[in-house]
Amino acid sequence: MTTVRVVITLKPGVLDAQGQAVRQGLHALGYEGVSEVRVGKHIEITMPDEASVDEISAMCDRFLANPLIEEWKIETDALPSRRPS
Amino acid sequence: MTTVRVVITLKPGVLDAQGQAVRQGLHALGYEGVSEVRVGKHIEITMPDEASVDEISAMCDRFLANPLIEEWKIETDALPSRRPS
Repeated sequence: MTTVRVVITLKPGVLDAQGQAVRQGLHALGYEGVSEVRVGKHIEITMPDEASVDEISAMCDRFLANPLIEEWKIETDALPSRRPS
Repeated sequence: MTTVRVVITLKPGVLDAQGQAVRQGLHALGYEGVSEVRVGKHIEITMPDEASVDEISAMCDRFLANPLIEEWKIETDALPSRRPS
């Protein structure tokens, strides 16, 4: 089994209301130096070793991310680019 | 300005209802091989260059994470371990 990390973030320019709320909270606690906060999702998926990057990309496009406003990237040590047939 | 990434995840053993829902969704789409999904938060904080790891750790402990059920780690290129005085 392999564990793959997918990081989903709002595209640059898309309003991040959650991030703004966190920034205001940090300012209220005295961390005035924080100039911007962006909040995204971090998803760890445990899959069979023979899973491919293409398969994970399809999951992101079809289900995990909203391609209109979000972008995603896969972080893993080593995955074959295609599933062996 | 430096951008620091904080990844907040549920501690091992804590029930991840959101992750289970995502896993069921992926199974329903045909990705039967997915055995586990854990969902966490990915926070990008833009701060002055002189910010220290200690300061970000304090933010996580006081505000960003719930230390009862969550753990966090800081991912950044280079930060001084203490704020210069």
